[in-house]
Amino acid sequence: MDTTIFERYESEVRTYSRSFPVVFDYAKGSVLRSTDGREYLDFFCGAGALNYGHNNDFIKQRLISYLTDDRIIHGLDMFTVAKEEFISFFEKSVIEPRNLAYKVQFTGPTGTNAVEAGLKLARKYTGRANVFALNGCFHGSTLGSLALTSERRKRAAAGVPLDNVTHCPAPYQFGEAHALDFMEKALTDDHAGIDKPAAIVLETVQAEGGINVFSADFLRGVREICTRHEVLMMVDDIQVGCLRTGTFFSFERAGIAPDIVILSKSIGGFGLPFSMVLLKPDIDIWEPGEHDGTFRGNQLAMVAGKAALELVADGHIAEGVRVREALVRDYLTEQLAVLHEGAEVRGIGLIWGLDLHDGALAGSITRECFNRGLIIERAGREDSVVKVMPSLVIPIEQLQTGLDILRDAAKAVLETTG
Amino acid sequence: MDTTIFERYESEVRTYSRSFPVVFDYAKGSVLRSTDGREYLDFFCGAGALNYGHNNDFIKQRLISYLTDDRIIHGLDMFTVAKEEFISFFEKSVIEPRNLAYKVQFTGPTGTNAVEAGLKLARKYTGRANVFALNGCFHGSTLGSLALTSERRKRAAAGVPLDNVTHCPAPYQFGEAHALDFMEKALTDDHAGIDKPAAIVLETVQAEGGINVFSADFLRGVREICTRHEVLMMVDDIQVGCLRTGTFFSFERAGIAPDIVILSKSIGGFGLPFSMVLLKPDIDIWEPGEHDGTFRGNQLAMVAGKAALELVADGHIAEGVRVREALVRDYLTEQLAVLHEGAEVRGIGLIWGLDLHDGALAGSITRECFNRGLIIERAGREDSVVKVMPSLVIPIEQLQTGLDILRDAAKAVLETTG
Amino acid sequence: MDTTIFERYESEVRTYSRSFPVVFDYAKGSVLRSTDGREYLDFFCGAGALNYGHNNDFIKQRLISYLTDDRIIHGLDMFTVAKEEFISFFEKSVIEPRNLAYKVQFTGPTGTNAVEAGLKLARKYTGRANVFALNGCFHGSTLGSLALTSERRKRAAAGVPLDNVTHCPAPYQFGEAHALDFMEKALTDDHAGIDKPAAIVLETVQAEGGINVFSADFLRGVREICTRHEVLMMVDDIQVGCLRTGTFFSFERAGIAPDIVILSKSIGGFGLPFSMVLLKPDIDIWEPGEHDGTFRGNQLAMVAGKAALELVADGHIAEGVRVREALVRDYLTEQLAVLHEGAEVRGIGLIWGLDLHDGALAGSITRECFNRGLIIERAGREDSVVKVMPSLVIPIEQLQTGLDILRDAAKAVLETTG
Amino acid sequence: MDTTIFERYESEVRTYSRSFPVVFDYAKGSVLRSTDGREYLDFFCGAGALNYGHNNDFIKQRLISYLTDDRIIHGLDMFTVAKEEFISFFEKSVIEPRNLAYKVQFTGPTGTNAVEAGLKLARKYTGRANVFALNGCFHGSTLGSLALTSERRKRAAAGVPLDNVTHCPAPYQFGEAHALDFMEKALTDDHAGIDKPAAIVLETVQAEGGINVFSADFLRGVREICTRHEVLMMVDDIQVGCLRTGTFFSFERAGIAPDIVILSKSIGGFGLPFSMVLLKPDIDIWEPGEHDGTFRGNQLAMVAGKAALELVADGHIAEGVRVREALVRDYLTEQLAVLHEGAEVRGIGLIWGLDLHDGALAGSITRECFNRGLIIERAGREDSVVKVMPSLVIPIEQLQTGLDILRDAAKAVLETTG
Repeated sequence: MDTTIFERYESEVRTYSRSFPVVFDYAKGSVLRSTDGREYLDFFCGAGALNYGHNNDFIKQRLISYLTDDRIIHGLDMFTVAKEEFISFFEKSVIEPRNLAYKVQFTGPTGTNAVEAGLKLARKYTGRANVFALNGCFHGSTLGSLALTSERRKRAAAGVPLDNVTHCPAPYQFGEAHALDFMEKALTDDHAGIDKPAAIVLETVQAEGGINVFSADFLRGVREICTRHEVLMMVDDIQVGCLRTGTFFSFERAGIAPDIVILSKSIGGFGLPFSMVLLKPDIDIWEPGEHDGTFRGNQLAMVAGKAALELVADGHIAEGVRVREALVRDYLTEQLAVLHEGAEVRGIGLIWGLDLHDGALAGSITRECFNRGLIIERAGREDSVVKVMPSLVIPIEQLQTGLDILRDAAKAVLETTG
Repeated sequence: MDTTIFERYESEVRTYSRSFPVVFDYAKGSVLRSTDGREYLDFFCGAGALNYGHNNDFIKQRLISYLTDDRIIHGLDMFTVAKEEFISFFEKSVIEPRNLAYKVQFTGPTGTNAVEAGLKLARKYTGRANVFALNGCFHGSTLGSLALTSERRKRAAAGVPLDNVTHCPAPYQFGEAHALDFMEKALTDDHAGIDKPAAIVLETVQAEGGINVFSADFLRGVREICTRHEVLMMVDDIQVGCLRTGTFFSFERAGIAPDIVILSKSIGGFGLPFSMVLLKPDIDIWEPGEHDGTFRGNQLAMVAGKAALELVADGHIAEGVRVREALVRDYLTEQLAVLHEGAEVRGIGLIWGLDLHDGALAGSITRECFNRGLIIERAGREDSVVKVMPSLVIPIEQLQTGLDILRDAAKAVLETTG
Repeated sequence: MDTTIFERYESEVRTYSRSFPVVFDYAKGSVLRSTDGREYLDFFCGAGALNYGHNNDFIKQRLISYLTDDRIIHGLDMFTVAKEEFISFFEKSVIEPRNLAYKVQFTGPTGTNAVEAGLKLARKYTGRANVFALNGCFHGSTLGSLALTSERRKRAAAGVPLDNVTHCPAPYQFGEAHALDFMEKALTDDHAGIDKPAAIVLETVQAEGGINVFSADFLRGVREICTRHEVLMMVDDIQVGCLRTGTFFSFERAGIAPDIVILSKSIGGFGLPFSMVLLKPDIDIWEPGEHDGTFRGNQLAMVAGKAALELVADGHIAEGVRVREALVRDYLTEQLAVLHEGAEVRGIGLIWGLDLHDGALAGSITRECFNRGLIIERAGREDSVVKVMPSLVIPIEQLQTGLDILRDAAKAVLETTG
Repeated sequence: MDTTIFERYESEVRTYSRSFPVVFDYAKGSVLRSTDGREYLDFFCGAGALNYGHNNDFIKQRLISYLTDDRIIHGLDMFTVAKEEFISFFEKSVIEPRNLAYKVQFTGPTGTNAVEAGLKLARKYTGRANVFALNGCFHGSTLGSLALTSERRKRAAAGVPLDNVTHCPAPYQFGEAHALDFMEKALTDDHAGIDKPAAIVLETVQAEGGINVFSADFLRGVREICTRHEVLMMVDDIQVGCLRTGTFFSFERAGIAPDIVILSKSIGGFGLPFSMVLLKPDIDIWEPGEHDGTFRGNQLAMVAGKAALELVADGHIAEGVRVREALVRDYLTEQLAVLHEGAEVRGIGLIWGLDLHDGALAGSITRECFNRGLIIERAGREDSVVKVMPSLVIPIEQLQTGLDILRDAAKAVLETTG
């Protein structure tokens, strides 16, 4: 299909269309189809928003039915049946069984909007302006979230200095002990020059930063520091929540409860815009309307969200993640990492990275994958990490096929460049 | 229906559920139905996101069909057929006939995200940090947009100082000539203390600020100042674009072309999250990926958007707005304003305000309206303006009924308080 | 004398040496002598730091005596006899007779340091970050003061955005009533977009801004607004305090008491660095050491300050200012303003401006004055105001001579250019 | 003498008067005399502004002579003979012999003003807003310098967030290699979240931070990083320049040349307010008047400065520092450190600290010293470091006496508390 319309009228800011320069039309499960009839396996998963694959039928039928019946679509923050059912099921099936206690805030249905709400509330709750984030993090592109976000190029696009955030070393910079010690010293040294923060904000697995998995010990260490210094712990689970790491919340493996949790992308897993801020009840000191947004009551997304929670409630998807996790980990380790000196494999659940420490090489490989029918992207420093993030329910055979394509593409590229 | 779930689990930040404390379930055209079977006329229109009424059948069938066929739902910024069709029809039916020239940028699908993108680009394009906004404006709740937003309570929620914005007097503060003169002096006086801005950002009708309609002369004046000083003119048409004022863009009545236009709420008019930044082509200096957001390719919203553009293409809806405009204006003037000394009627198209200069009184009236089956909200300084914003295609009879309820409620309240 | 050393080694930032490109060595009263033996009449007065002329003998003898006796020169904020005598005499001779009540804070001995201290305390006292300043103001060049300062070129030198200040229209912009109304609206409109300030900071006569004298009514208006809204009134009397306008404090003519007053330049009038913050006692909530500075105990300056206060205590200098004020005002009006269409004369006490609304012309005149032996500078918008600021005790004959030079220079320039 | 005047009229911000609650009047060499006739040995040296003792006769005679002759006292940035002589001698005796090349900028005569000027120029020169500083640093109390300054209490007094500065670990936090590595990573990691700085600002010996001496290797490491990344190196030599560490500039021992050097306190060593920014010539891109300040031409301070440079020109004072350095180091190590488990001795030249890791204990000791006639202060974390900073020319006998008092006071206190 002709792409003239896009080149002529769509802003130069678009990026994935440059990696995958075809026009997509149909999508089902882990397969996308472009207008020229070609099919692509999906190892990208809509940047993590499609955990249950494209057009999951169970969710889809709920949406069609809701639409067909003329039920309310746009609810702002009014009470609706769809919202009641979502909240109720979320509390019963997700929060209570984990012995957690969170109230939910619906914000404008993008991750960044929820992060901004979390920041505002943390600052209001503590009366402090500063916030700690980690090197390598990504939290969004609006001004408040962007100040957290670590990528240089994105930061520079702000056009104004980004302030009220202190970036602390991630555990992989100078070691885990140092990362905790740095925060501790920043909080206790009366001559640190670093102002006490409202919150420490982090992803438990830095996805955009290059698939950096933080250990349970480190997460517990951060929790302990936050508690001891009366600083809020805010976990951004936008990309790695919703079962991506094998448990609903990515922090479950550490046995901790953050004070604020941000969810978005795959709450419904269908690609409908939706996001939530989870708040420990005593933190919920918002006054009515202090943070708002027109689309904070996207009912279709709530219907999808409820359906997705039903899908995962019996645990078989989590179980499936563990099976696929082992497969991907072993394959990457045994068949990919060996192809290139110094290549590293990192990941958990179904988010994995092959770090080639060479952005150009990683780019050649993902381009070659695309040529061979696999949609896969890069992440991390200098875009040097090939990121494997398939649907959580991808058929094993397709997963195997995709990995084979990746291996063959890597071999082909390395033969040429080597 | 029981609202315990919400009270227990939903954040205190919710606000409209306090004005309309029932649980809604069904909605069609200008009627909402709550779980107790009661029906409500809608003069609020989802805060402007439902210009064609709830569950418009034409749009709905397109959505169901798109879903049924397993077409791609979540597209990031990849090329898709749905996006191609939307852009193509938008350019052909909206931009070209008006002799405009804009490229489109899709951002995270909320108004505030698009405003943030516009701000970033304006700052990048000009190399200036400051931006001018007007007293009374509303542009969003994330940090960059919030710095523009004028409402004190919302600003205070930031928890950090809001900077890099200069708020200039709106025309209704000290007169239109003064408003232009203030900006001119700020730009030319070498001792103003006000830094040259990247852009002047404004709504042509301040909705949240209290339905303040800026004259065509004023809008042309701003355009002229921007051009002469090489400052970008950025119009936030989130609430009053998409035919709300009678023309697709609210600035058409002034015969101007802003450099950046923000659209959101009613692009599709179905309540699906969507937003766009329109850019004069030479301003589109984004580098790929400089501003992003997971849900910037909400395909269902693009399908709804295309359908809505088809709906309005032949002009009969615009014509209908003019008919209803006259009806509302006359009714408010003749039947409402006369009830209360000093009440003012302001508006254009189908966004009208009855300013009672008394927030408590306005609140009593809208509450009484709700009791009588009319959903209507307040806006403006101290929430003193009753805001009439029905669907653009509300049947005349329902419009009449709603206005009668409003009049009767006002009378009842004024008799009690008077 | 050769100026090679300066051109080679002194930073390009120097400015007055460009207006007066000779090397000065001796100075007495209102006469400076350069190394080539030429004498210059002084209508510039060290930018206001030499109110009693160069090397005033009364003060000088005190300094020599203090030095000779090996009394303590550098006191930090320790108790010293010199400081005790200064404070004691200041309170007795300046504060008490005016029915004022101020504590004194000694800061680093520059005006900007005292302004920064005042800002910090106002913000601490009120818990608010924002501050109001006026178009046309000048308050200093360090980051906090610079955010107040209005001159575009100086602001741009910050290299970072200047924030937490709102610049309000000065009375001469849109009228006095408007200037007050603007502040009132900014404080009361709940949608102003302008955050409530800690303080309103102003000079009662904007010197650098172009000799703009604010009326007593306006000053009382600001005082009233501050009191009613619990905002601190902070007067920067650095240039126009210390009798420059005919009374010790420039605000005496309005019968008001600001909450914070900044003094510097001519406290001692001898050119020794010194500055003070005057604080209403209840505002003095500083904790020990919260604001400091090595040279905050410049004892020689305190000795000079005490001596200068003795000089002015009997009122004859104030009386002399009134005599000279009339002379200057009349001369400028009758002999200068008439030379150029549209020229304006503004001033009070012994600070006067001839606004030619033409910076190049004003520059030609002051250069010609220098050639004829008169040191005189420019101020204001585009440097278009010739600024007459002689010593308060300049002999009448010298004053007359200086004015004649100014007139003749203006005539000569106008003949050439006209 | 009565201190009522101070308690009644001087702001609560005063701090040293609380440590030394007597009224001083006479001072000579290393002895101060209070109004009750008591004499005190001076181990504090006016916070470093009196390197050649109080009322040094050589300098004093120059000042008296300059005053007596009615030479110009207040010069702004005009050319004067006193300034010519100062610059000329400074370049010839200080800069040239060290193979350095600096132009000089005179700012408002306080250290903080010069730091602010350096920051502005570094930001202008590089076009970058951010600046790196180190934990434990002190650079001043005005807003720009305060953002650099690390002490929590001083920072909190700003009343606004302090931004555009990244505080990096000092070498003593996690080791020297780490400190360099942290900066290197912050500059090279494209996901650091830390914006590239205009400059790295540091003291070579952190005085207020607790007498932390940075190694020559570390200083060379910083220089190398700055050079390689085109970041300016700015050394704040306000307290430890002017021979305090044994060489004129404190960084000479590392054999490096910073791009910007800040001098103040002891340029003249007489206590007269004075400060300078030294700039590599190519950095001097100031436009005339971009940074100013009334007292930037404090001629008496220039006269004192020239005299002091003459004093030190033959090197005998530097030689005397080395002798005294050995004495102090050995005494502290052998007679003080041994008194308290864990006490540490740190220092160089004639700035030494005894870190007791216990602020209350350190306070008891300095108070006891004062009771015994020794003026000595504390610094560092929790004020736990007793700071020994006598005049560079203190007679050996007085130095010995002071150290004995310190030892005896420490013993007395430790006996009581122990």
